[in-house]
Amino acid sequence: MDPKAIAQAIDAQLPLAETMFHDLETQTGDDQGITRPAWSPQDQCAADLVADAARSLDMEVAYDPAGNLYATLPGRDRSAPGLLTGSHLDSVPKGGNYDGAAGVVAGLTALAALKDLGVTPPYDITAVGLRGEESVWYGIAYLGSRLAVGSLPATELDQLHRGDTGRSLSDHMAELGFDVEALRQSTAPYISPANTRAYLELHIEQGPVLVSDNLPVAIPTTIRGNVRFPYARCLGAYEHSAAAPREHRQDAVLAVVELVAALEQFWLAQEAAGEPDTVLTVGKLYTDAAQHAMTKVPGECRFTLNVGGTTQTFLDTARSLIYELTNEIAAKRRVSFELGDCVGSDPTSLDANLRRLLSQSATALGIAHREMATVGHDASIFARAGIPSAMVLIRNQHGSHNAQEAMEIADFRLGTQVLTSALYQLSGL
Amino acid sequence: MDPKAIAQAIDAQLPLAETMFHDLETQTGDDQGITRPAWSPQDQCAADLVADAARSLDMEVAYDPAGNLYATLPGRDRSAPGLLTGSHLDSVPKGGNYDGAAGVVAGLTALAALKDLGVTPPYDITAVGLRGEESVWYGIAYLGSRLAVGSLPATELDQLHRGDTGRSLSDHMAELGFDVEALRQSTAPYISPANTRAYLELHIEQGPVLVSDNLPVAIPTTIRGNVRFPYARCLGAYEHSAAAPREHRQDAVLAVVELVAALEQFWLAQEAAGEPDTVLTVGKLYTDAAQHAMTKVPGECRFTLNVGGTTQTFLDTARSLIYELTNEIAAKRRVSFELGDCVGSDPTSLDANLRRLLSQSATALGIAHREMATVGHDASIFARAGIPSAMVLIRNQHGSHNAQEAMEIADFRLGTQVLTSALYQLSGL
Repeated sequence: MDPKAIAQAIDAQLPLAETMFHDLETQTGDDQGITRPAWSPQDQCAADLVADAARSLDMEVAYDPAGNLYATLPGRDRSAPGLLTGSHLDSVPKGGNYDGAAGVVAGLTALAALKDLGVTPPYDITAVGLRGEESVWYGIAYLGSRLAVGSLPATELDQLHRGDTGRSLSDHMAELGFDVEALRQSTAPYISPANTRAYLELHIEQGPVLVSDNLPVAIPTTIRGNVRFPYARCLGAYEHSAAAPREHRQDAVLAVVELVAALEQFWLAQEAAGEPDTVLTVGKLYTDAAQHAMTKVPGECRFTLNVGGTTQTFLDTARSLIYELTNEIAAKRRVSFELGDCVGSDPTSLDANLRRLLSQSATALGIAHREMATVGHDASIFARAGIPSAMVLIRNQHGSHNAQEAMEIADFRLGTQVLTSALYQLSGL
Repeated sequence: MDPKAIAQAIDAQLPLAETMFHDLETQTGDDQGITRPAWSPQDQCAADLVADAARSLDMEVAYDPAGNLYATLPGRDRSAPGLLTGSHLDSVPKGGNYDGAAGVVAGLTALAALKDLGVTPPYDITAVGLRGEESVWYGIAYLGSRLAVGSLPATELDQLHRGDTGRSLSDHMAELGFDVEALRQSTAPYISPANTRAYLELHIEQGPVLVSDNLPVAIPTTIRGNVRFPYARCLGAYEHSAAAPREHRQDAVLAVVELVAALEQFWLAQEAAGEPDTVLTVGKLYTDAAQHAMTKVPGECRFTLNVGGTTQTFLDTARSLIYELTNEIAAKRRVSFELGDCVGSDPTSLDANLRRLLSQSATALGIAHREMATVGHDASIFARAGIPSAMVLIRNQHGSHNAQEAMEIADFRLGTQVLTSALYQLSGL
């Protein structure tokens, strides 16, 4: 089919998408932004809204036991592995309307356009609205997709508690009417390579690159992995700032400054040596407000370390360097470091064939685009479960996780055209 | 007189000193430490205790209009400029018993010993108990000595308010019965070079040097000056920690880290070049607890800078460097620095003749000692008012400004012997 026909079919469905964004905003937002907690009445409201739209389009609507929503355009062979597209319905507190929901609306819009084109695909094409992607609610990210692919132990259903309500995940699920017992008893994952041949996720870009590059769309290469120390601290000794000469000091701030400066030098050197897409962030750094003073040598400094990269070698090197540097600095400055747990994730390559297909689709549609590494998304969970996965990123103003997040519908249109064109070709139509 | 005779006279008065320390501790302390707020019933209790002891020794007792307490061993010529020794009576909240009070008790002990030796000096020798040395109460240090030498504008009496009570300095003074109106109207300072030929202050060391060097006594060379930025901050931009590539970042923490690391290099270089007694402290350094996160590029970082030194050249160079570095780093990293007010004080040299006399006295008494620079004390106020001033520092465990502060009476004994011997010789006896 002529790419222009697909583009026109998307354009014809844009009013539906705009209505859905409008309804999502008015029904789950207030003047502080959008708040759709995972497994809450608010994200159920979003799911109901998507489900109603899907039913009005004559799609099949279903929930899995965890509460992920599936709207399906049935294919000729209902038993063959199908295509999955979508993203998540939940948001952070006081967040924006598009982080997550844009991908769900794009999926339903794509299905509506394909239906409108009179297409009956060889196998099912399904738009999914996932739950619980944001880690802010239960302390762990990608809960909905993890539950769908069976990579979250059932014991977690009772052990995870929502930070704001203090109630368990199973309790919140049951309150929305989902069958927690079925989830506990289930032996086969709801989504697997056996029933899903590919997963494509559209998501807003959460950084400033596309705005800066004046491009509407990017095709991510990799989901960055990271090495994180969420609760690190350095312990020295408090002293009178003027009475203690240098050789008597055990200054926790100067020790952490030396560590961070050395890590930045490492970052710059790796970048100069060609290591792609690395990041280093010390997002929290603080002396103890109950004890610190301008006139005291600081005896304690807490900090976080967050190193991101697209190769395992880089991440392993960074982790080793952090341990080496803190040992050296501790000995030299007579302080101690308590780095705490090292957490993080491995980098996840997105599927090369799917990426090429998305890129070719964009080119055929005349849509300027670039490649880039991206951050953690549900796509990484599907990819690790063995389902070939790829993504489309949409330009977005002001970053995400805040009420100022602002995707333009013109960019959503172009991204959804790319997504739909790829789904069409994947169906072998 | 044989130094041994002076030493024995001090030893004979040690029970008096020990009783005073004991009474001070029981009457102005609790299980949290010692708290004698400036111009409070508690430091008046300390003043009363010293005044009572002075009267029992047949000393003359007087208060100046600001409430500083004077106990005088009268000399033959009552109109000739006299000798002044002492320190301050107030403490920090939950502080120790000796920071300040040791010098007042030493002064009275010295006078008692001289009286016991049957000495009538050629001019008055006076022990002073000063008020309001600790800046924690009214935001400004050395209030008692400033008021005594007339270097605090009378308008401040109503403008300064005690942090914990919110009430004005004049209000607290009046409550203790001091004549605030007389202070406002006074045209001549109570203490001046015209009536005071020298000031000697004994004080505990507030750092770890004498403990580390295993010495009981030090004779300070200089009171360090400093260049301070109490309210500095760096402003960048918050971004998603993984979605924002390096070239898009305006990272406030990395900017402050570069500044602090460069200042430490400057410090080490100056020290290596022979600049004596320099210190650099970043006592407070903190990202915004309401906004920071491990997963956000930090958009703001607040900090204090506190550089100390004994030469004006060093301090001027440090101040210039701070402005230069922040300009460079701001341009390079696209952040901004708001350094806020630069405050501080000039270094104050202690009187060379008095220092030599104190050192010779210690040597004659067989007391091991060293020189060192010291921190701000009332002695700097008298020195700047044109009164030759010097100090004796006493070894002290665990630093000061905390309840663990612990001077040993054996060290107090040696320091007071040095002080008394110097007073004796200054009297030309």
